Amino acid sequence: MPDYNRRRFMQTLSMSAAASLGGGFACSKRSAKRSNIIVIFCDDLGYGDLSVFGHPTIHTPNLDRMAQEGQKWTHFYAGASVCTPSRAALLTGRLPIRSGMCSDERRVLFPDSRSGLPQSEVTIAEALKPAGYHTACIGKWHLGHLPPFLPTKHGFDTYFGIPYSNDMDLIAGKPYYETCVKPRSELFQVPLMRDEEVIEKGPDQTKLTKRYTEEAIAFIKNNKKNPFFLYLAHNMPHVPLFRSKNFTNHSLRGRYGDVIEELDWSVGQILLTLRKEKLADNTLVVFTSDNGPWLWFNQHGGSAGSFRNGKGTTFEGGMREPTIFWYPGRIAPRLVQDMGSTMDLLPTFCALAGAKTPENKVLDGHDLSPVLFGNASSPRRTMYYYRGRQLYAVRHGRYKAHYITQDCYGGPHPQLHHDPPLLYDLGEDPGEKFNIAADHAKILDEIETIRKNHLENLVPGEDQLTKRSIPR
Amino acid sequence: MPDYNRRRFMQTLSMSAAASLGGGFACSKRSAKRSNIIVIFCDDLGYGDLSVFGHPTIHTPNLDRMAQEGQKWTHFYAGASVCTPSRAALLTGRLPIRSGMCSDERRVLFPDSRSGLPQSEVTIAEALKPAGYHTACIGKWHLGHLPPFLPTKHGFDTYFGIPYSNDMDLIAGKPYYETCVKPRSELFQVPLMRDEEVIEKGPDQTKLTKRYTEEAIAFIKNNKKNPFFLYLAHNMPHVPLFRSKNFTNHSLRGRYGDVIEELDWSVGQILLTLRKEKLADNTLVVFTSDNGPWLWFNQHGGSAGSFRNGKGTTFEGGMREPTIFWYPGRIAPRLVQDMGSTMDLLPTFCALAGAKTPENKVLDGHDLSPVLFGNASSPRRTMYYYRGRQLYAVRHGRYKAHYITQDCYGGPHPQLHHDPPLLYDLGEDPGEKFNIAADHAKILDEIETIRKNHLENLVPGEDQLTKRSIPR
Repeated sequence: MPDYNRRRFMQTLSMSAAASLGGGFACSKRSAKRSNIIVIFCDDLGYGDLSVFGHPTIHTPNLDRMAQEGQKWTHFYAGASVCTPSRAALLTGRLPIRSGMCSDERRVLFPDSRSGLPQSEVTIAEALKPAGYHTACIGKWHLGHLPPFLPTKHGFDTYFGIPYSNDMDLIAGKPYYETCVKPRSELFQVPLMRDEEVIEKGPDQTKLTKRYTEEAIAFIKNNKKNPFFLYLAHNMPHVPLFRSKNFTNHSLRGRYGDVIEELDWSVGQILLTLRKEKLADNTLVVFTSDNGPWLWFNQHGGSAGSFRNGKGTTFEGGMREPTIFWYPGRIAPRLVQDMGSTMDLLPTFCALAGAKTPENKVLDGHDLSPVLFGNASSPRRTMYYYRGRQLYAVRHGRYKAHYITQDCYGGPHPQLHHDPPLLYDLGEDPGEKFNIAADHAKILDEIETIRKNHLENLVPGEDQLTKRSIPR
Repeated sequence: MPDYNRRRFMQTLSMSAAASLGGGFACSKRSAKRSNIIVIFCDDLGYGDLSVFGHPTIHTPNLDRMAQEGQKWTHFYAGASVCTPSRAALLTGRLPIRSGMCSDERRVLFPDSRSGLPQSEVTIAEALKPAGYHTACIGKWHLGHLPPFLPTKHGFDTYFGIPYSNDMDLIAGKPYYETCVKPRSELFQVPLMRDEEVIEKGPDQTKLTKRYTEEAIAFIKNNKKNPFFLYLAHNMPHVPLFRSKNFTNHSLRGRYGDVIEELDWSVGQILLTLRKEKLADNTLVVFTSDNGPWLWFNQHGGSAGSFRNGKGTTFEGGMREPTIFWYPGRIAPRLVQDMGSTMDLLPTFCALAGAKTPENKVLDGHDLSPVLFGNASSPRRTMYYYRGRQLYAVRHGRYKAHYITQDCYGGPHPQLHHDPPLLYDLGEDPGEKFNIAADHAKILDEIETIRKNHLENLVPGEDQLTKRSIPR
């Protein structure tokens, strides 16, 4: 769709707030200093949970403004529909099946896991280090909490955060679901770490978003003279939901909305710091999430907007994320309806930083620079939707074929195999309501060829998620 | 929520594009000239069908910009869930049950109808005329196509448009649904009128949006020196869907998206004209729709976003509309999460114009000026959801009680009576998924008192919609 996009681009440019940002966009001209890079990553945020993505009762003025000043992507995907594989995908630019960070038995890492992201994998932080970047990971890691797998072993100079999900380490005897929806922070004895040390057990989670934000701001201020990469991975809005006193009863949307509005405040603080420190014109900020909303938790889960289903599934609600790219003066404000993925961040950042992409690694990411800094269409044409180690669905262009579907609501759900696959036109039917397989044999053939080719060339990594400290 | 809103308002003001509009907002200072007023009204547009309200594959840059510069309302209601009563509600500021423009037998007017909006009703146009306003109705009327009921008999100086829905007057022998989804304009022999004369039968509907836009622009240019009221009621995106050549294959969303993107173009043309003619700082523009998306038409129907159900129902999807108020320099850019309704337009416009509201009429509308031009909370606290002549649901504050629900998908559907009513918290649960009646007896009591009081004081108007030219 290059013509289509070009027209839109010009339309948007001529009419948007672009002019107020100070005139033209130096698409080809590089700043003398290397760009700083910040990824703000949420946990279980739904596509429809920000006001700029259509939520009627959550108000996110900072993210709304970020989107107005930047690029709002409406077809941007996480690499998986649950935490651990999605985070592996983002940091390595690879499908989690390659790194082994996915499993059919245990979908994420747990406190009794004894493995993590293999040392052979190259993270964004490791790729950027040789280019002189200072790197920090703040927040949720979930790629291995034992010493060999921590952020500091994967290219991050520093780490501060909870190394897995905030609903883990529930004290014995408490019922999981009920405790999550009527949460008390002290019931979840998760570790809070600084670098490689546990500094607290069961930290007050009402202060988590604020503490992460303060850490992020301090890192930015301390690295004004270096290029830096900051990976700020909030634990929220994963259940149990916690927000500070300032945000209690802040939102019409109840506790979940309070949490989102505190995250929005946090984004505002980060961008404000960049402006104050005169780093705004030299920093790329990406906002997105690891997977869709956890619908099982009802009012404590988010909303995928008009998309089908949520976290844990390979429907759009499980993997389509509300995504914003912001880089005043470098990124022209516009809406992008092309495809992108968190797996594209590594090659994009490497291109921006003048760093080499990992050698001898099959990458599943594409460099999105031509879309971000120019007006080209996205190099990403295809998206693979894995659940665990199985390929459930393939999107190519506007069409998506589901070979297997499976619900995800707490209890076990059967796999449903589809032959012919379910086929949806995600352009005309973003909600995946109308199966058009019967009339589109040629498109199904094309997708089937892509699928077969992908699977034939795939070298799966050894499953790291089933490895436990105490084997069953 | 006055404090809540005040905080948001200041937040938005300090951080939004507000500054680029030229500084402070003359909230108390009135312009010497009376404000012009434009209502852009769509037909069957869903809450989720604009990019600024979250649609992933429809791009509406002009409406997105309008919302950025103005107020985006996320709790704004049509007066009914189908055309005729909704239009009566907007123009009279009254529930259609009062004017008799609703019926349990025929939900809208048809070409064989012999009645229309009673002469005793006072429309916005009639209310504004004594204040010196020039008035025009362009587009769909649907309040009576026979001479006594036309726009020119209801306060409009001029009329140009189709006096009812664009899917009517289907030539004999053609199946309705199939013809609507594979439409040819010449099969719908609807009249196109200029004032009180039919000037064409079966006009080329691919040119309709463009012709309405040109008429609107001509009216604006011809009335630069008078205060004016323009009611621009598009026939689109009601089925059968038509768009001009320029917009064919314009959108990723297919034919429906093309239609919306042409409407967006039209909005852009209107606002551009206001800017060029130096009327932008003296004109209030309101964009909204008559009811939710017609889901029965599948890909030819729109999307209510995360709201439940659509057109014809009293769920939020049937009556919540994507609404934008725009008045540069007078309306501060912000998001409004308070309640409003098309019925509030008449009293709001009268206040703005210094005109009297109709005497001896019970009004269901509230003057929204304190919200639009200040930062007060909305005077509207309650919304009544009628289907035909029956009150199905009542919203008070954040809570909505459904006494009756009924689906609407083409064929007949049973009424479901609920005792106790279904109760939803529209703040926490905008999608009406979680019935909380069991735990909220006090709120149900409060709503029941409001309902009883409303019904006891209601004087229903005589049903005008069952009157036919040829009685059965």
